[in-house]
Amino acid sequence: MTTSFSARLAVRELEPYAPGLSIDEIRSRYGLERIIKLASNENPLGVSPLAKEAVERKAASVFRYAQSGCPRLVEAIAGLHGLSPDCVVIGNGSDEVIDLLIRCLAEPGRNNVAVFKPCFGLYPLQSRICGVELRAAPLRENFHFDWEALLDLVDERTSLVFVTTPDNPSGYSPPAPELEKLALRLPAGTLLVLDEAYMDFAACSEGIPNSRLAEFSLLPRFRDFGNLAVLRTFSKLHGLAGLRLGYGLMPAELASCLCRARLPFSVNILAEAAGLAALEDRDFLLETLKTVERGRELLQRELAALGCRVYPSSSNFIMFAPPERDGPARPEGEAGHVFESLLRRGVIVRRLNSYGLPGLLRVSVGKEEENRIFLTALREILA
Amino acid sequence: MTTSFSARLAVRELEPYAPGLSIDEIRSRYGLERIIKLASNENPLGVSPLAKEAVERKAASVFRYAQSGCPRLVEAIAGLHGLSPDCVVIGNGSDEVIDLLIRCLAEPGRNNVAVFKPCFGLYPLQSRICGVELRAAPLRENFHFDWEALLDLVDERTSLVFVTTPDNPSGYSPPAPELEKLALRLPAGTLLVLDEAYMDFAACSEGIPNSRLAEFSLLPRFRDFGNLAVLRTFSKLHGLAGLRLGYGLMPAELASCLCRARLPFSVNILAEAAGLAALEDRDFLLETLKTVERGRELLQRELAALGCRVYPSSSNFIMFAPPERDGPARPEGEAGHVFESLLRRGVIVRRLNSYGLPGLLRVSVGKEEENRIFLTALREILA
Repeated sequence: MTTSFSARLAVRELEPYAPGLSIDEIRSRYGLERIIKLASNENPLGVSPLAKEAVERKAASVFRYAQSGCPRLVEAIAGLHGLSPDCVVIGNGSDEVIDLLIRCLAEPGRNNVAVFKPCFGLYPLQSRICGVELRAAPLRENFHFDWEALLDLVDERTSLVFVTTPDNPSGYSPPAPELEKLALRLPAGTLLVLDEAYMDFAACSEGIPNSRLAEFSLLPRFRDFGNLAVLRTFSKLHGLAGLRLGYGLMPAELASCLCRARLPFSVNILAEAAGLAALEDRDFLLETLKTVERGRELLQRELAALGCRVYPSSSNFIMFAPPERDGPARPEGEAGHVFESLLRRGVIVRRLNSYGLPGLLRVSVGKEEENRIFLTALREILA
Repeated sequence: MTTSFSARLAVRELEPYAPGLSIDEIRSRYGLERIIKLASNENPLGVSPLAKEAVERKAASVFRYAQSGCPRLVEAIAGLHGLSPDCVVIGNGSDEVIDLLIRCLAEPGRNNVAVFKPCFGLYPLQSRICGVELRAAPLRENFHFDWEALLDLVDERTSLVFVTTPDNPSGYSPPAPELEKLALRLPAGTLLVLDEAYMDFAACSEGIPNSRLAEFSLLPRFRDFGNLAVLRTFSKLHGLAGLRLGYGLMPAELASCLCRARLPFSVNILAEAAGLAALEDRDFLLETLKTVERGRELLQRELAALGCRVYPSSSNFIMFAPPERDGPARPEGEAGHVFESLLRRGVIVRRLNSYGLPGLLRVSVGKEEENRIFLTALREILA
């Protein structure tokens, strides 16, 4: 029997998601023993040991539903930032909070969402699914933010403005005073969403967490703004990407709306347990920050020494362009060639075609040994 | 600073979710040592041992993102039902699949969704959030389905019809020929969604899984229908409620839309690993089915013997009304009195106020010892 019903146009037109090759697939395709994945900005040290223990301890309890809304975790997150639990919305990754913000604030067919371009793929995707217009201001050539271009797109019907800082894939963080000016210039009724998935890496200096936070983030002055939401995640610093845990900090009235609109058990019971444990695992957080700070320095220096164009990063990844070379252009482009050649040597980095940046690559900061293997492989390829 | 923006009306009007008391809260409130929770239709035997092992084995890998779409698990589920992997949509609980179905098929402000009333709270909730009209036909007094009343509500703009079978909270399963007639009478363009979260318990007879499946489900003849979706979950039979894993089986073209609209990593990496393991854990599944079949028989018989009105159940829970008693009505109602009295004795069952059924209670089938403790407590209360 054939199907006669039809999905909404907005959904039918979505691009099919093209998943990357898994580590296993690459291993068998290229006959490799060792694979190094520096493609998804995961934690170079793995998972917080305390979080791992919490998962193991809780494994026998997964037949129970979690307490809806995970109040203990909400309390802990609120304490971490010195805010009221009423301002915290946890989600199945910060992805879910992004989706909820658009769903709760933007009326389909009426409101719009403003972003920079390129940006995190979920802002345009969820806007489209929600039936909400997306307006995108191009980033400057150096991947800094052109606030005037963004503000030109914003009007009384703009429900949300998303700014990722540090930005992905560039790694750039704008100074906090620029963000403050933006917040003050937005119309009443427009929420500024600062997606700080990678902020821990920008805010850390010489191993001291959050020592530069006020330089880059409005979070320390959250209460001064009535139209601000800040997104954070456990995927990066805490090493819980696969468990799915993120949160938003926002005005209490809005947080209450999102919590009511959220699927009642969207955060799984092990994410809750692991999140609570990870917040206590200060040793792991410090070690991660140190590893990222050192590795980032090494990679930036060595990539530049190899003739790559390197974009200064305050995150746990680095965007770069391979050096231009003499001779005829390769059909797959220089970045494509480097990407494939790295793959054949067992090193996975990220192509940026889906960001509209086919000439650039992004490498996540790994463990020192991984960084060195990546650099050695790249040196061979470029030789 | 006060907030000046405002959430969509549909969201502001949502009822705040009222979470039940946790086991810990009840323990400390009533000074109890032993708490028995028979309130959420969780697996009486806990979690599948193989799934528990898989969680423990995988705990060190949660810093990795899962492979988007979890292809191995999709393959296994497809094999279980003899369908193509293209027809499978996994989700963060079947809750997510319900939400995706409404989002993908119903145009806000134009289409409608038809259900019975009372029904699973998520159908009306997600319809409202999506800006889609909900139409509800009352169940018959005996909680059977009034198909004519439902069909009277359906028109060319009805995108989805949700039918839960076995139904919750009644436990009633309509015969498959009635579902077939419904499927054939729906307009072209209307999807029939059979929510079979509890079907394993209806389909099992004398310990033999699926021996009565064709009696209650259209799944064995899935290919005969072009307008059918079937929802299943790992929360009940497989004991993974807290890990969040469910799926929908639907025409491939529709499944492709849902997969594109789904958040890329909505299913967590431990749910995937546990789900794969649970599907292999035949011993646990058989033991669960036996425990539920026996416990259901015991509870139905003994509740009736205590003078309760018992609704025949083919699921892992039983809906009942306490016997009416002589004398003045209690202010909290007879069901309210029984609920509170059970709580004070450390037994948690489910009140059905949120279903609009304040005179009824629902008890999940527990382990034999738990069932007996519940019955003893109830006997004392009713004496």
